[in-house]
Amino acid sequence: VHSSLTTYKPMHKEQSYWASINSDIETHLKMSIPIRSPLSVYEPMHHLTLSAPRSMAPALCIAACEVVGGHGHQAIDAAAAVHLMQTAAYTHENLILLDQQKPNLAAHHSYDTNIQLLMGDTILPFAYELLASSDDSTGNNSHKILRVIIELSQAMGTQGMIDGQYKKMQRIGSDDRLIYQVCKKMEGELYSCGAACGAILGGGSDNEIKKLRRYGLYVGLIHGMMLRGIGLGRVKEIKALALKELHYFKNQNIEAITSLVDARLFRSSS
Amino acid sequence: VHSSLTTYKPMHKEQSYWASINSDIETHLKMSIPIRSPLSVYEPMHHLTLSAPRSMAPALCIAACEVVGGHGHQAIDAAAAVHLMQTAAYTHENLILLDQQKPNLAAHHSYDTNIQLLMGDTILPFAYELLASSDDSTGNNSHKILRVIIELSQAMGTQGMIDGQYKKMQRIGSDDRLIYQVCKKMEGELYSCGAACGAILGGGSDNEIKKLRRYGLYVGLIHGMMLRGIGLGRVKEIKALALKELHYFKNQNIEAITSLVDARLFRSSS
Repeated sequence: VHSSLTTYKPMHKEQSYWASINSDIETHLKMSIPIRSPLSVYEPMHHLTLSAPRSMAPALCIAACEVVGGHGHQAIDAAAAVHLMQTAAYTHENLILLDQQKPNLAAHHSYDTNIQLLMGDTILPFAYELLASSDDSTGNNSHKILRVIIELSQAMGTQGMIDGQYKKMQRIGSDDRLIYQVCKKMEGELYSCGAACGAILGGGSDNEIKKLRRYGLYVGLIHGMMLRGIGLGRVKEIKALALKELHYFKNQNIEAITSLVDARLFRSSS
Repeated sequence: VHSSLTTYKPMHKEQSYWASINSDIETHLKMSIPIRSPLSVYEPMHHLTLSAPRSMAPALCIAACEVVGGHGHQAIDAAAAVHLMQTAAYTHENLILLDQQKPNLAAHHSYDTNIQLLMGDTILPFAYELLASSDDSTGNNSHKILRVIIELSQAMGTQGMIDGQYKKMQRIGSDDRLIYQVCKKMEGELYSCGAACGAILGGGSDNEIKKLRRYGLYVGLIHGMMLRGIGLGRVKEIKALALKELHYFKNQNIEAITSLVDARLFRSSS
């Protein structure tokens, strides 16, 4: 889609693709959460959403939509919702860390714990509202949006990120195996959900949704492991599993989405 | 309407109506949140949901559905979701209270703060999942369910309960006027949402939804004020406003729903 450089040509092209998607999502988030009255609510909501750590899960949502033949804009609310879910989880996770007297140095704000608590609780319903409101007046899309709402709820809930946070919190062992499980439940489920939501909204078949969901799980796992610097010996193996899922799409344009397993891309985009 | 005080008979009839609805909602909640693996997640989720303070907002959801000609079972998932939303808000509000070193004596459990934090975060997505999953295979109901999801999100969010919790937390004054605002934002929005959701799912017209939404707001306000024992001098006036909204339904069976403004009923049912 975008311009080329003499060196790192293929990678540069894909980085531009992802950068362009991420910029669209950022713009959409800024527009969706204007700083308005009451400022005591909207200002931290806006700030926390835009300062929370990014992942490639929202961008994967758009890319998956395009792989199955949809237009990226059909998945923009879902992509924003994926980021909002992650922001809500991250905001509350900081409270657990604080509680365990391990101040999180990565937090780019100074809101007190009550504000952080309420913000997580504000951002989550807002994500659902954004999605539900994206239904057009004909209601033709309603059933797909409800499927996306189920996907997001499951990625957040007892089988997804919450389970990951439990595992992390309870510190049942602190070995690589536990952290691997946490990566699977957190980044894994989030990316998996992003990919599935994009495929659903783009009109993908059940098989396409299934393959992209699994691809997302593996990519999320890889990104989570790299983020935490664990199990790096296994990355190659998981990468192979991820790419295997994409064989199904061999006649489609999968150049960009394939690049997401690449370590360099992950580092430069997150 | 039923001012006859000699025997309490009519009141008994309506109390039975509400008790029966509340029992259906309780059964539905128990079935929807089985105690299963992982127990560390499901056990507190089940327990907190069933031990959280009740309001009449979920029952109002069912009753509103019936007033506009629907069947109560069409609104049972929405009614359960209203209770789950309230549970999530209550669970996190306890954390704010703890933080301010005002132990909440009403809490019927001894979960630590991290579990309470994660539980609120689990219950909320679960409520949305329950609702979104209630879509039938034909998808005929999808658009209505999305409307209900928007209603619930708004009742929870920046214009609803979160705003109420902010007001409460910041203690901008502690006079009756503040508490009145808190009642409006918390019980008021919750009941209002319950009534609107029931009316939407029962197939009510825009006007019916509007009237029942307002009726819910006034009833919630009255129940909130009675709960906190403030502004009792204004109850009569608000009751009149509530009943005025029901004039619109004068040809329908509104005996039961009308009884919700009654103080005795509130006390015996909550």
